[in-house]
Amino acid sequence: MSELRRDPIVGRWVIISSERGGRPTDFEPAAPRPPDAFCPFCEGNEDKTPPEIRAIRAPGTTPNTPGWKIRVVSNKFPALNIEGELDKRARGIYDIMSGIGAHEVFIETPEHERTISTLPPDHVRDLMWMYRERLRDLERDRRLKSILIFRNSGQSAGASLRHPHSQLIATPTIPKRILEELDGVRRYIDFKDRCVFCDMVDEEHTFKQRVVCENEHFISFSPFAARFPFEMWILPKEHQPCFKSVADNQLAPLAAVLQETIKRLDKSLEYPPYNYVIHTSPVNSEINYNYHWHFEIIPRLTHVAGFEWGTGFYINPTPPERAAQFLREVEL
Amino acid sequence: MSELRRDPIVGRWVIISSERGGRPTDFEPAAPRPPDAFCPFCEGNEDKTPPEIRAIRAPGTTPNTPGWKIRVVSNKFPALNIEGELDKRARGIYDIMSGIGAHEVFIETPEHERTISTLPPDHVRDLMWMYRERLRDLERDRRLKSILIFRNSGQSAGASLRHPHSQLIATPTIPKRILEELDGVRRYIDFKDRCVFCDMVDEEHTFKQRVVCENEHFISFSPFAARFPFEMWILPKEHQPCFKSVADNQLAPLAAVLQETIKRLDKSLEYPPYNYVIHTSPVNSEINYNYHWHFEIIPRLTHVAGFEWGTGFYINPTPPERAAQFLREVEL
Repeated sequence: MSELRRDPIVGRWVIISSERGGRPTDFEPAAPRPPDAFCPFCEGNEDKTPPEIRAIRAPGTTPNTPGWKIRVVSNKFPALNIEGELDKRARGIYDIMSGIGAHEVFIETPEHERTISTLPPDHVRDLMWMYRERLRDLERDRRLKSILIFRNSGQSAGASLRHPHSQLIATPTIPKRILEELDGVRRYIDFKDRCVFCDMVDEEHTFKQRVVCENEHFISFSPFAARFPFEMWILPKEHQPCFKSVADNQLAPLAAVLQETIKRLDKSLEYPPYNYVIHTSPVNSEINYNYHWHFEIIPRLTHVAGFEWGTGFYINPTPPERAAQFLREVEL
Repeated sequence: MSELRRDPIVGRWVIISSERGGRPTDFEPAAPRPPDAFCPFCEGNEDKTPPEIRAIRAPGTTPNTPGWKIRVVSNKFPALNIEGELDKRARGIYDIMSGIGAHEVFIETPEHERTISTLPPDHVRDLMWMYRERLRDLERDRRLKSILIFRNSGQSAGASLRHPHSQLIATPTIPKRILEELDGVRRYIDFKDRCVFCDMVDEEHTFKQRVVCENEHFISFSPFAARFPFEMWILPKEHQPCFKSVADNQLAPLAAVLQETIKRLDKSLEYPPYNYVIHTSPVNSEINYNYHWHFEIIPRLTHVAGFEWGTGFYINPTPPERAAQFLREVEL
């Protein structure tokens, strides 16, 4: 089983997952998978993944057989495991926790060559619905403190399989980045008595300089202090702490803004590798009414170098105003 | 001129550097440089770099001509500039600062094909001396708050030129990561009245499980909560807040531990791309006697994926005990 270890200086938790390899020879660069390689996520290969946890499938079809539209399964090589006791202890001067949590895969479509850009709009809406379903289900596990949904697209963004998929990792401790955002939100409220994310939505919507696209419910923009070229965030325009609270009638508008954002990215930069992550309020802890959930979308265009790693201080060669302009002007 | 922008939520500063390119077409993957490509850092090409700021050179030779051993020049495409006023202002709801600072390059040797592993030991010692010299010189500029020295080795670690070099970026604000470490150090002192880094040195030296190599003055080990496979830190065994305080008689022992660490990495993983960064106490602010400077060495073996970016929560497939064992056992 994997374990969680805490950095004694900054309090960052790390998952040490020895089942995933780790010898020096495991790190030789992988050759790109040939396009005709066997794909465990394709329709007909349902027995090659762990059994499905949840699926949207045609009426009358049987779990773990063809006929599905979206399928959620456990990760075959999970970073954290749902079984076991959540055990916290010292090791020497350090702190560890057993590797309890969940690690799931959303197989987004049976079609191997689709992307978020080219799926039918109602299919992307169903994916948002499924994200929300898994959040709502997993938060009932009292051991879990945070649930992160993310998508790695392209080999250099960490995707080991090409077939469209996203992932979910639920952890028994709140990730550092989310804690920092909660702290930041609290400090801003102390000072201004307003939500910093709501202020950003207003500013961006009013001045339009960094907006990529928007509709009644959601706005997509390149943030003022973007760490990466063409970084984009999607926020609900109304204050909403948790992704699980997205209303039914907001799912289609969310899918529309996400899909247009990814389409513009794909067109401008010829299908670049990217990651997105949904930042949402922690679960099973004091409810953070002040948090404001959002997507962060990070195209992987540059190598992050020593300075960035060492400092958390990023160098971004593309002003976000310019990135947003390129993205807005591309023809869809 | 570039500008510094502050993320309004977590307070992270970003350098927005529009002179370095930034259009969508600037991000097409660069072809690897052919081995015989022109190299501005080689001996004889001194006029192809900005003029030297400092050098170690043979007696009687002239600046910006051959005869040098180590040469420091300004970065030709600097992220920050030393000239100008440090201007801080609001832009809408956001905060910006002019891009004042320094960005220098240490050309480590005239020889194109050397590496830290294969330089003579006294040459690595001279490089450490030069790092210390530049720190001591730059901290006299009262506008600067932090000076980071780092090395990108290999194209996928961010090195655009193969010729051995390291870099320095001095910033007018303290990087987030360093602030977090200062906070962590302070909290640990409040709780235990000891330095957390000193405690780590004791623990690692006593139990040896994660040690890569050590001598009287310095210890190299893979940290307990390593974020990355084969991540290593080098610490002075005695409490020492600033790299600028390294004593003359400590330069050779430091070079010895650094060189052995990199040699073991190069042998175990066949010259992998890596970054190192020297974390040292901020300058021109309250002196942080509690800080403990150190090297962080990060081999670039895996793709950092969406989960890591989104959360600051890392998944490391190689337990540091195992990494240290591989590194210790390799024959030099």
